[in-house]
Amino acid sequence: MGHDGWQVPAPQALRAGPGFDLAALDRASTPGWSGDREAGEPHAAARGERLAELQELLFAHGRTGGTRSVLLVLQGLDTAGKGGIVRHVIGAVDPQGVMLRSFGVPTEEERAHHYLWRIRQSLPRPGYLGVFDRSHYEDVLVVRVAGLVPPEVWQARYAEINAFEEEVTASGTVVVKVALAISPDEQAARLRERLERPDKHWKYNPGDLDVRAQWPAYEEAYQAVLDRTSTDVAPWYVVPADRKWYARLAVTELLVHALEGLELSWPPSDIDPAAELARLDAIRIPQPGGAAAD
Amino acid sequence: MGHDGWQVPAPQALRAGPGFDLAALDRASTPGWSGDREAGEPHAAARGERLAELQELLFAHGRTGGTRSVLLVLQGLDTAGKGGIVRHVIGAVDPQGVMLRSFGVPTEEERAHHYLWRIRQSLPRPGYLGVFDRSHYEDVLVVRVAGLVPPEVWQARYAEINAFEEEVTASGTVVVKVALAISPDEQAARLRERLERPDKHWKYNPGDLDVRAQWPAYEEAYQAVLDRTSTDVAPWYVVPADRKWYARLAVTELLVHALEGLELSWPPSDIDPAAELARLDAIRIPQPGGAAAD
Repeated sequence: MGHDGWQVPAPQALRAGPGFDLAALDRASTPGWSGDREAGEPHAAARGERLAELQELLFAHGRTGGTRSVLLVLQGLDTAGKGGIVRHVIGAVDPQGVMLRSFGVPTEEERAHHYLWRIRQSLPRPGYLGVFDRSHYEDVLVVRVAGLVPPEVWQARYAEINAFEEEVTASGTVVVKVALAISPDEQAARLRERLERPDKHWKYNPGDLDVRAQWPAYEEAYQAVLDRTSTDVAPWYVVPADRKWYARLAVTELLVHALEGLELSWPPSDIDPAAELARLDAIRIPQPGGAAAD
Repeated sequence: MGHDGWQVPAPQALRAGPGFDLAALDRASTPGWSGDREAGEPHAAARGERLAELQELLFAHGRTGGTRSVLLVLQGLDTAGKGGIVRHVIGAVDPQGVMLRSFGVPTEEERAHHYLWRIRQSLPRPGYLGVFDRSHYEDVLVVRVAGLVPPEVWQARYAEINAFEEEVTASGTVVVKVALAISPDEQAARLRERLERPDKHWKYNPGDLDVRAQWPAYEEAYQAVLDRTSTDVAPWYVVPADRKWYARLAVTELLVHALEGLELSWPPSDIDPAAELARLDAIRIPQPGGAAAD
């Protein structure tokens, strides 16, 4: 073992490959990372700055005709920490370059369309970092567990989602799919905190307990998602989420890798800097008092 | 004089009242604030944390049926620092509670509508902090200076904008209008930097110099905006912007005041915490190995 740090690159340590067994995952583990919270937090901050630089490069690329974008898809049970990832990881980059969308219970208009309609509408434009807080995967998770459509309907969706994501990636978007995996005990502790603190009551939804009561069915539905939709073009990364500092560190690292993989550089420009500097120097601005500033 | 800090509250020091003279404003001054950059930056960071707390309170309010929201309208000439305000001031709050919209040259669809159409569509929903990077004021600034519509058309817009903002504030949105005022010399320095650094060329737009060449006409158009639209319900704050640290400190402070003015508290809840805790404790989750966690 060397110093604290990534002993195995995060994308490799966290990827859900063939045979990945969600039930066997220790949700308090820190795959690929050697070090504790004291080492992890400053590292995450430094990588957050790197992420912000890369996001600016992506934005510049988009502003100059580039077609690439990145989409972070965040899934996880209630209290798994999706909101914290948005606040802390996405909060490190310039809000102007982020397209964030939370997918709740579909509206009447959304229900009148195909389930991918609202998803397509929310895809990041070129140059943007898109973030989905929940996503089309709810259509094979809650929809499956709660039996909102017949089995043959949700069963057909895995292939449909794979085809959709292939189309999205082919059009230039790198899709980073993150499943935050929390343990039952840690979820209980987080729900308990919401109940014990009046300033957190607004975040508490009694329906969360109904979902919790169906834990094994959700685990089974997540396992099916990992088995059937962790493709080469859009793999799943399963991030143990009992330790919030690790989850934030890991998602930051996955995004840094995704953006570095684009191998972007500052876009060439067709402006003539010397000529523009001469134009700039030639402009005389009358001062309110009568003199001219330059 | 006391310690470093706000000697006059920012909303009072920066408000454009009757007779405000834009030409007389020193764009390197720091109205209301006593102290230098070394004092200003940590203060801005601390107030940014306060802003984040208040934004969460606003969000909680919106999630529980509240109708209030805050809208920051940012105006200023090219390089005045609108983007930096978004990155640094708005970047301090949870991205999930922000609705950010940049208004560029209107699209064909937007041109087919009334100029306030795209503005209305972008107003913050209850509980959100909205940010307009440029706004409907472009319709009496660039539109006036460039003569894109006949004078009688833009002349009618001041009253129309006042009526619109009265309607917006009456519906529960606090409108904080900030004009960033930069000096000609500082703008020249910032444009020069963009031209001298290849990694900044993508931000450079030759059209910026055409606008710069019309500096007096823009100052006149801004003065008219301040004279005619700094109303009691939606006053303008004019922030000297040659010192970036001051502009960020000042806008943070204006937003903190706006949010504190809402006098929000954590929303009451109709959940029964004891009953919910009992429900939580009653749920037994079978472990993959066969045991039950609780």
